[in-house]
Amino acid sequence: MNTPNWILQRARLTPERVAISWGEEQWTFREVAERSMDIARKMRGTGLREGDRVALLTSGGPETVFLIHGGLLAGFELVMLNIRLTEAELAYQIKDSGAEAVFTDDLLLDRAPDSTAVSRLLAGEGTDFEPAALWEEDRTLTIMYTSGTTGFPKGVRQTAGNHLSSAVASVLNMGLQEGDVWLCAMPLFHISGFSILCRSLIYGMTVRLQTKFDAEASAKEIAEGSVTTMSAVSAQLVRVLDILESQNQKASGNFRQILAGGGPVPSPYIRRAEALGIQILQTYGMTETSSQTATLAAEDALRKTGSSGKPLFFNRIRIDGAERPGDEGEILISGPHVTPGYVGRFGDRPAQEDGWLHTGDIGRVDEEGFLYVLDRRSDLIISGGENIYPAEIEQVLAGHPAIAEAGVAGVEDERWGQVPAAFIVARKDVTAEELEAYCRERLAPYKVPKYYRFVGELPRNASNKLLRRELRDKFELQE
Amino acid sequence: MNTPNWILQRARLTPERVAISWGEEQWTFREVAERSMDIARKMRGTGLREGDRVALLTSGGPETVFLIHGGLLAGFELVMLNIRLTEAELAYQIKDSGAEAVFTDDLLLDRAPDSTAVSRLLAGEGTDFEPAALWEEDRTLTIMYTSGTTGFPKGVRQTAGNHLSSAVASVLNMGLQEGDVWLCAMPLFHISGFSILCRSLIYGMTVRLQTKFDAEASAKEIAEGSVTTMSAVSAQLVRVLDILESQNQKASGNFRQILAGGGPVPSPYIRRAEALGIQILQTYGMTETSSQTATLAAEDALRKTGSSGKPLFFNRIRIDGAERPGDEGEILISGPHVTPGYVGRFGDRPAQEDGWLHTGDIGRVDEEGFLYVLDRRSDLIISGGENIYPAEIEQVLAGHPAIAEAGVAGVEDERWGQVPAAFIVARKDVTAEELEAYCRERLAPYKVPKYYRFVGELPRNASNKLLRRELRDKFELQE
Repeated sequence: MNTPNWILQRARLTPERVAISWGEEQWTFREVAERSMDIARKMRGTGLREGDRVALLTSGGPETVFLIHGGLLAGFELVMLNIRLTEAELAYQIKDSGAEAVFTDDLLLDRAPDSTAVSRLLAGEGTDFEPAALWEEDRTLTIMYTSGTTGFPKGVRQTAGNHLSSAVASVLNMGLQEGDVWLCAMPLFHISGFSILCRSLIYGMTVRLQTKFDAEASAKEIAEGSVTTMSAVSAQLVRVLDILESQNQKASGNFRQILAGGGPVPSPYIRRAEALGIQILQTYGMTETSSQTATLAAEDALRKTGSSGKPLFFNRIRIDGAERPGDEGEILISGPHVTPGYVGRFGDRPAQEDGWLHTGDIGRVDEEGFLYVLDRRSDLIISGGENIYPAEIEQVLAGHPAIAEAGVAGVEDERWGQVPAAFIVARKDVTAEELEAYCRERLAPYKVPKYYRFVGELPRNASNKLLRRELRDKFELQE
Repeated sequence: MNTPNWILQRARLTPERVAISWGEEQWTFREVAERSMDIARKMRGTGLREGDRVALLTSGGPETVFLIHGGLLAGFELVMLNIRLTEAELAYQIKDSGAEAVFTDDLLLDRAPDSTAVSRLLAGEGTDFEPAALWEEDRTLTIMYTSGTTGFPKGVRQTAGNHLSSAVASVLNMGLQEGDVWLCAMPLFHISGFSILCRSLIYGMTVRLQTKFDAEASAKEIAEGSVTTMSAVSAQLVRVLDILESQNQKASGNFRQILAGGGPVPSPYIRRAEALGIQILQTYGMTETSSQTATLAAEDALRKTGSSGKPLFFNRIRIDGAERPGDEGEILISGPHVTPGYVGRFGDRPAQEDGWLHTGDIGRVDEEGFLYVLDRRSDLIISGGENIYPAEIEQVLAGHPAIAEAGVAGVEDERWGQVPAAFIVARKDVTAEELEAYCRERLAPYKVPKYYRFVGELPRNASNKLLRRELRDKFELQE
């Protein structure tokens, strides 16, 4: 379904409503549109044209929002770069996406030396142009990289139709009230954060922005009722709970819910949240589905512990090969929120088969239709909400001259949910410290293994496939 | 955007939520789906197939809902017949739409003698079939007739995409809360009533159903807070206000708003409603747009008296030929809620030009973007929420042997907003009573002119076009 340009339409319909609030400052939808149009003109002034692919490497906050909206108004496909990546990882994504330009926060310029500093962009000349009145359903708004099972990150296309149907399906599930304010402490280059910006435009809702997650500030806003909804991963959630409990505070009556993604929330957290008047909505989503596919209603949170709930209204979920409720298998997803495909190296690989996305995740659906995610695809590690693919780390380790073979698995961590652990078959003497330093040069900090175990061989099945689950089990037995 | 079968999806997602409440009875979404599937099997058991066009002539209430949902599950295009039409008018619509079958409430059988009684349908044998898992965006769900400017009613196609985008745009404007209940006192064969059924399925919201508008019961529900929203036309609204005032009652804090269509609500009504704690959202919509195109926020109701507000998020409105804000002209509408076209006699006439629906209505948009509807298309008369086209009545009158020429215009009426008045150039002696009896045989009661004025000639412009506005002005001067 084609829709009017979200940024301009929102500025026409509710110009005086607050769009973005950050610290003591705020901007109405009219102001956001004006600032973004100014940036759009400057972007077009550099010679870029509608339909060009443009990467952004920015650290969040309102200036990032204006830059994102500017890029959308300019008609670009925005490659959203993760600021936690190393220079080499960034270079891969910039090259793979075929970005015509990269705009980078001045402070991050050392990470992408060939890019254009935002300060230089803003000092430039603008070119007048007429922004598109309509956003076509299949227009790619954003491209986000998700680490691939092969070790090569894949650039996922997210269309206007994907983001729109995701935002609308969410509102049908979570409701919408006058005065709703969504606290965004998630990175805007992630779908978890970016989807909040889309909801803001589509709902006409205020986003309360944190440049970086601030647990103290989040707890204060929840207690005071200056926000009504928040997105969080378990590791953030528990810090907010700790603070509220330690200060003997509860959530304000205005505060409605925390949308909790990035893996299941342990039931003790849910009980603690309930005691503070906070509803926890657990959700299952991914970059390929522009955020939520299934969400567990707060009323079912304890009755269905460990479940990610039912599909949102536009979506369907089925378990590959399941003959009856409860059968385990690969989770397949269908709906207007599913990416049409990839760019770059994986550009010719279809994202769907017969209209279904094969997630690689293993799950089951119970007789009432509730989804349980049993194992993330390809032993995906989720650490503080970031997705980490073992294959990518294994490939880096395998490049070290002292290493014969390496296997990586996610192991439990109190703070981050999971962290990567490396299992090494060495060919020469090498220390854990040496390997860590080696990884730190080549991988974003959150991907660097926290543990290094030297083993005689790696567990493999008959067809020689690495059994990462066994690595994990072994690790946990030893601890 | 293709979506899962709304009826089955809703039964899967929120099976135990109340879908329909009526008198002392209620049905959950699971029960509604089961009853509707039973009817769908019986409909298919008569030999009808997916894609067939099937007309319904039913008087409302839950049985009508099950019949509608049954027809949608069976895969039909439903021709929604207005029970206030005469036998001849119904016969035209049935023939024009090419309906393969007509299912008629037993009590209405005399109006459509060749149709199948619902009781007979329900006593029949069912045939098992697999209902469509997905509803394609461009699948026609309903066909509703709207009187044409030529005197021939036009069958308007309303697709799944039209109804869906209308429902979603509405929720983005009006919000959605747990426990919302929409009071439906509108006919289900009208878009005003049918759109409430769509919202119920898409939102998972309870509809409180009245078979016929009951002012006393409506006032009671609003005062008690057993409903949160209601659709009404001015004539209904004022009766509800009268009752609440006479009983010294106010709206419950639960009650949020009345969506008021079918012409502007006089500002004294808005003030009275506000004093009772009722927000009035004035809306501009039509059969061709599957209900609301623009809606005035309650906060602007008095500041922008007479306006129908701004477009909903997915929609655009422009004034043909307008060069600056405030210029008057034909209202053009664009959006995913606009019908793709007509069936039958007008099947080859495009509904849109370059993506814009030409409404025939005259209006203006002010500098803030608020729409004012100045004159309904082709002198449309809106009487108690029903659309009446003067041309249709003029054509009937012209068939009377004593009449040389006839012109019809809408004149103000305290109860109905407007009623038709006929202006007759007679060729022989004839009385108003004779003409009224003549019309009553050929026209639905609400279309029969309330006044008959005999004149020497009809006002016409240079190109001989009848000036109905002058008829109206003349009538009002005389009264």
